[in-house]
Amino acid sequence: MGDPAGVGLEIAFKALRDHQDLPAFVLLADPEAAARAAASVGYKGPLTIQPIPLATTAMPGQPDPGHAPAITGAIEEGVRLCLTGKAAGLVTLPIAKATLYEAGFGFPGHTEFVAHLTASTPMAGTRGPIMMLAGETLKVSLATIHTPLAAVPGLLTSERLERACRVTLEALATDFGIPRPRLALAGLNPHAGESGGIGREEIERINPVAARLRAEGHAVTDAQPADTLFHPEARRQYDAVLAMYHDQGLIPVKTVDFWSAVNVTLGLPIVRTSPDHGTAFDLAGKGLARADSFVAALRLAAKMAAGRAAA
Amino acid sequence: MGDPAGVGLEIAFKALRDHQDLPAFVLLADPEAAARAAASVGYKGPLTIQPIPLATTAMPGQPDPGHAPAITGAIEEGVRLCLTGKAAGLVTLPIAKATLYEAGFGFPGHTEFVAHLTASTPMAGTRGPIMMLAGETLKVSLATIHTPLAAVPGLLTSERLERACRVTLEALATDFGIPRPRLALAGLNPHAGESGGIGREEIERINPVAARLRAEGHAVTDAQPADTLFHPEARRQYDAVLAMYHDQGLIPVKTVDFWSAVNVTLGLPIVRTSPDHGTAFDLAGKGLARADSFVAALRLAAKMAAGRAAA
Repeated sequence: MGDPAGVGLEIAFKALRDHQDLPAFVLLADPEAAARAAASVGYKGPLTIQPIPLATTAMPGQPDPGHAPAITGAIEEGVRLCLTGKAAGLVTLPIAKATLYEAGFGFPGHTEFVAHLTASTPMAGTRGPIMMLAGETLKVSLATIHTPLAAVPGLLTSERLERACRVTLEALATDFGIPRPRLALAGLNPHAGESGGIGREEIERINPVAARLRAEGHAVTDAQPADTLFHPEARRQYDAVLAMYHDQGLIPVKTVDFWSAVNVTLGLPIVRTSPDHGTAFDLAGKGLARADSFVAALRLAAKMAAGRAAA
Repeated sequence: MGDPAGVGLEIAFKALRDHQDLPAFVLLADPEAAARAAASVGYKGPLTIQPIPLATTAMPGQPDPGHAPAITGAIEEGVRLCLTGKAAGLVTLPIAKATLYEAGFGFPGHTEFVAHLTASTPMAGTRGPIMMLAGETLKVSLATIHTPLAAVPGLLTSERLERACRVTLEALATDFGIPRPRLALAGLNPHAGESGGIGREEIERINPVAARLRAEGHAVTDAQPADTLFHPEARRQYDAVLAMYHDQGLIPVKTVDFWSAVNVTLGLPIVRTSPDHGTAFDLAGKGLARADSFVAALRLAAKMAAGRAAA
């Protein structure tokens, strides 16, 4: 459902309206909010809904902390369906953190909440969560996410970097079906530190992790200058990049794949994707929001689920 | 000349070979090195050279600290020609900092050296230097340049940000001929700090500067989330972006305009541009280096000089 005052339900029905070949999905949502969203985009086909009732009627563009229990309840139910094998994957629709915080939600976002809900479930492989932004032409994982820039250097421990690399490599192999994935590591500093002249994190933290993984046979580069890592020719050299911080990874993906990028959580016992945009309260109810990213999120979740089933 | 062991002279002659309509330029270079570079790319036209002799013969791909006095001498002579009105602008070819450092060069790069050489020359407007990367589709100025990422937040003082904004606005108006330039400021933190939830530099440092400049009538935005600032639709909203640090600005420009981006120094009493790549010692002497960025640097210098002459 996501936040029922946002564009989430709308884009789900827009996707159903405009695409005949979508992976089948069940909407975990308030039936009234769903019906109104369907009507707002002129979708007249079948609605496959598992009801998650809201306490009060949702008005487009008017977030309401009273909706928080249903919003988080829909996420919990989605995770439960995945963990019990009734769903192959979870696609979350946008939530507004401010609304949920007011209601006492204690997580920075979906990624951390879903990781929490699945933390005690056994899984094969290295556990995340690691956020990846996957566009049509570029996939980037993040070593740090929603943290002030000033805190980033201190967070880049060897343990964190190695985990991020392993989770990404395993996901590329299993979820994305790339047999011998190539991972490029971005440097933290300008020119990847220029041999230590502009920062030493590359020498002291990033490159030793890369060397360890290469010794195991993985195709992982040393820290590369991030500014020359994302143009079309450079992109042919790897299957994914590990960026050190949010904007370093999201700027290139959103610059080249703005409408089609998907937010993926790697390293979970379940498949989870999400459109890479917010609730867009200012657009809600107007039928203007684009469904591209949701459609891509749905297709990617299906692909990842198929990859896991085949592994 | 740049480093005569790099691709600089080669791309200058490649540009002359392939373009009939280049702005006229004089090469400040060692005549032997220039003649060899011309021959290596099959350029047979006239050579307009002001000799800057090297102490020893330059070998492609083999940098030599003994060349440092001529390399820096060429820069000094170029600045002198601009300051005395004999040249309309300076286009620098790539230098290798390591070579110059060994010879005692005390500046991080061209930008700071040229600023030093022109520091006592009176000028109209706000003094930089501010580095801008100008591509065909995107122009980005940098509030900080070659500094470790960990040092960036501390460097973003109001004074520095205000100067960077003013220099960029004045350059857009005068050098680029944009009557009422629109400048977008990038946030430092993910989501531009999300109202203070992920860092406070936007609220405490960046936005107050923007407000002051708007009060003077300038079109300057508050800090914007950097990840959604560079896709084609977003780019229509501004004439340039002020990025807070190197990779934040260079990643988008080099992702979309990799071959044609030009490094420009704003806020100097002279016009100075440069191709946006290094010496590429591994390519030197092979005729493989692309001249696109040098050609763009030459054209932009001519355009900026014309803009200043008309102002």
